[in-house]
Amino acid sequence: MADVAGLLAEIVGDSNVLGGAQIREDFSHDEALGLTPVMPVAVVFPRSTADVARIVAAANEHHFALTARGSGTGLSGAAIPARDGVVVSFERMNRIIEVDTANHVAVVQPGVTLEELDRATEEHGLVYPVFPGESSASLGGNVATNAGGMRAVKYGVTRHQVLGLEAVLGTGEVIRSGGKFVKATAGYDLTQIITGSEGTLALVTEATLKLHPRLPYAATLLAPFATLPEVTRAVPAIVASGLSPLMVEYIDLMTMASLISVANLELAIPPTIKDTAQAYLVVVLEDRIDDRLEDDIVVLAEMLTGRGALDVFVLPDYAGSALIEAREQAFWIAKSSGAEDIVDVVVPRAQIPAYLDEVSALAATTGSWVAGCGHAGDGNVHLSVFQADPDKRSRLIHGIMAAGTRFGGAVSGEHGIGVSKKEYLAAVEDPAKIALWRRIKVAFDPNGILNPGTIFDLEETTRR
Amino acid sequence: MADVAGLLAEIVGDSNVLGGAQIREDFSHDEALGLTPVMPVAVVFPRSTADVARIVAAANEHHFALTARGSGTGLSGAAIPARDGVVVSFERMNRIIEVDTANHVAVVQPGVTLEELDRATEEHGLVYPVFPGESSASLGGNVATNAGGMRAVKYGVTRHQVLGLEAVLGTGEVIRSGGKFVKATAGYDLTQIITGSEGTLALVTEATLKLHPRLPYAATLLAPFATLPEVTRAVPAIVASGLSPLMVEYIDLMTMASLISVANLELAIPPTIKDTAQAYLVVVLEDRIDDRLEDDIVVLAEMLTGRGALDVFVLPDYAGSALIEAREQAFWIAKSSGAEDIVDVVVPRAQIPAYLDEVSALAATTGSWVAGCGHAGDGNVHLSVFQADPDKRSRLIHGIMAAGTRFGGAVSGEHGIGVSKKEYLAAVEDPAKIALWRRIKVAFDPNGILNPGTIFDLEETTRR
Repeated sequence: MADVAGLLAEIVGDSNVLGGAQIREDFSHDEALGLTPVMPVAVVFPRSTADVARIVAAANEHHFALTARGSGTGLSGAAIPARDGVVVSFERMNRIIEVDTANHVAVVQPGVTLEELDRATEEHGLVYPVFPGESSASLGGNVATNAGGMRAVKYGVTRHQVLGLEAVLGTGEVIRSGGKFVKATAGYDLTQIITGSEGTLALVTEATLKLHPRLPYAATLLAPFATLPEVTRAVPAIVASGLSPLMVEYIDLMTMASLISVANLELAIPPTIKDTAQAYLVVVLEDRIDDRLEDDIVVLAEMLTGRGALDVFVLPDYAGSALIEAREQAFWIAKSSGAEDIVDVVVPRAQIPAYLDEVSALAATTGSWVAGCGHAGDGNVHLSVFQADPDKRSRLIHGIMAAGTRFGGAVSGEHGIGVSKKEYLAAVEDPAKIALWRRIKVAFDPNGILNPGTIFDLEETTRR
Repeated sequence: MADVAGLLAEIVGDSNVLGGAQIREDFSHDEALGLTPVMPVAVVFPRSTADVARIVAAANEHHFALTARGSGTGLSGAAIPARDGVVVSFERMNRIIEVDTANHVAVVQPGVTLEELDRATEEHGLVYPVFPGESSASLGGNVATNAGGMRAVKYGVTRHQVLGLEAVLGTGEVIRSGGKFVKATAGYDLTQIITGSEGTLALVTEATLKLHPRLPYAATLLAPFATLPEVTRAVPAIVASGLSPLMVEYIDLMTMASLISVANLELAIPPTIKDTAQAYLVVVLEDRIDDRLEDDIVVLAEMLTGRGALDVFVLPDYAGSALIEAREQAFWIAKSSGAEDIVDVVVPRAQIPAYLDEVSALAATTGSWVAGCGHAGDGNVHLSVFQADPDKRSRLIHGIMAAGTRFGGAVSGEHGIGVSKKEYLAAVEDPAKIALWRRIKVAFDPNGILNPGTIFDLEETTRR
């Protein structure tokens, strides 16, 4: 084995490489639950696209694997390095290159965080509308996982904002795709296939992102319901209403109780309703004109009441923000409550009630607890799984994934597969598609040096 | 050479194959200008996905090329068969499988036309929002070319509506990707790479498409300006306004004169303004509430006047519809006026004025006429090129494409590359990207039987 850290230092200089005992434990994992961390042999901090290209060339020449890392806030283990591999940390490629107000785009390096981009766009009355809940996350990581979040029901997810990329292929070649335009038909769409590929096809060195007008008025409506199926059955009509809600979230009883206690929420829900409610719907509306928002609140409240809401509370601004903030922290709350794993299956939104019924049955069969909340507007169900026994847990999660697929859904809506959901994906996915993904991987990365073993195994395993 | 028509008849039956003299001349071309038609050796009409899979298997075994064809309304020659090749016409796979009102999706076979889907969704108060201007076009063709049209500024283009596909790979394997959900991160996004690949990666046999609420109120505003740059300079502010216009189109003087005369438009523009106006901006607004539309018309009209419009006309419904319809027929009008070629370069929308200046200079240098209109809101410029001399024309178009690329744009916004723009794309595109496209092509279609020679040559030519 060559002295990898030494090789990398020749490319980027000593101050941009960590090796051996210098490497912080942080670089051995992301935030995914229940995975074994892997210490890299080196961490390299490129400063430029040229640095990245030379790092990839060195990896090809000396046969070491590269795992891209943004802020390390991922939830699927895609940032865990390969054994004897190198972490490519983008934290020093963190410049906002441009906020182009005429074309409504931002051009960013991958290490820029969502928080930084939000600050930079706010002064122009613009917004990058993807809020996956962790504002310290990097745009590079968001592109790699096709991050979603609560506002996806209105604005779509990361891939709908990524207009162009600069990226270094596994061959070391630098390519540019797309640009400051929303449409093109001029060859295969490399931007879209790289987005969501979890660092396995290319290392993104620059992203051109769509911005939207930042609307000044918003209101949060909280509607308690007597049962969870009633909540989720109300959703399609709300999405269909033309009110164009910014968020449509469901929160089950157990999760709401955790949010209220951990975040000290004061929602002023009368005790009689609190005692009856088994689930909550949260809908956020936004508008550019205050009066229109007020009118739409009335329409929405009537719609919710007509569909069985026990009451509808238009939350004061501070309480609305606090609730949304707490909801964004749901993962941390699940983690601190001792959840052994989390799942973010997506199903067609009208299938959520039937799907959650099946999940409850699966939980009961295995003697497990499953609590949740989710992006009801786009069918993305977030479940915290409480089951200490690894075999039972694996069986339960396999069942949850298989049911999701049977209901016409997919294994992950936004967290990605990484290494944590790879086994589950392999169990439900068409082998012909996985074989095609392998061939696509080879087209981008012939030597398999980019995040090998993430999403799928590079070689077909004997299991299949 | 095997009796290809005979082979195909064994798969789909005699009544679903045409061979030899039975083949209508139609199947040798699409609507692209200036290309040499190629008669196929057979035309096959599959009735099912299984038919398509068996046709692809036969093509692999007997080494003949397959070119998918929807309604044949394409503008880049992507439906021209390969020499000794077979046309796979999807006109008999034309069922709307489902309009799912709870999940807001339609599931269609590729031969369904835009007109048919529009009728089927209207009764549910929903709309498939891509209107590329030719309503007899098929959804399969729209997916293959990532069709756009005037409403893209609000709703995006075809790829933003395609949630899932069933497709037959070049290997003959049938895959399904995506589904009735707007988000997933569960392996590489095959839906997106197949969309816009012009029949070269897979044959699409079913598409799951996003539907939107059909808004009942719309208004068309027509604003004449003294100069073309003033028109295009007004655009970014309109798009940024939050009014969320459905269409933002510019029309130059020559094109407007053709539209008015060919379509007998009566726009009631006073002669003094008609004499001064050198270009027009057309903006369509839509809303779910009549009063809001009325208010927004006032805001927009003030904005246009403030940006130099000579006047602003809110067209009566019939005149508005007639103008939009005429604009949709701009290609036919260009063709009948004798245009030798058409171009649909896309550039960042704020770059349109500078880009059009350069186009005018290029036209002047080569002694050519270039007239146009375009989707100003998304930077997609449609130019009709009048230059009878092939060498001069080629030089001019190379220049137009190179300038588009230099301004940060792409060779085609929505027509696609097909065979008509292949040479121009090769001249401006990065060879490393074309080489990657070739490797991706091989991953999907190892024997190169799907529409070979479309978008790029399968083999690197000596020219490069």
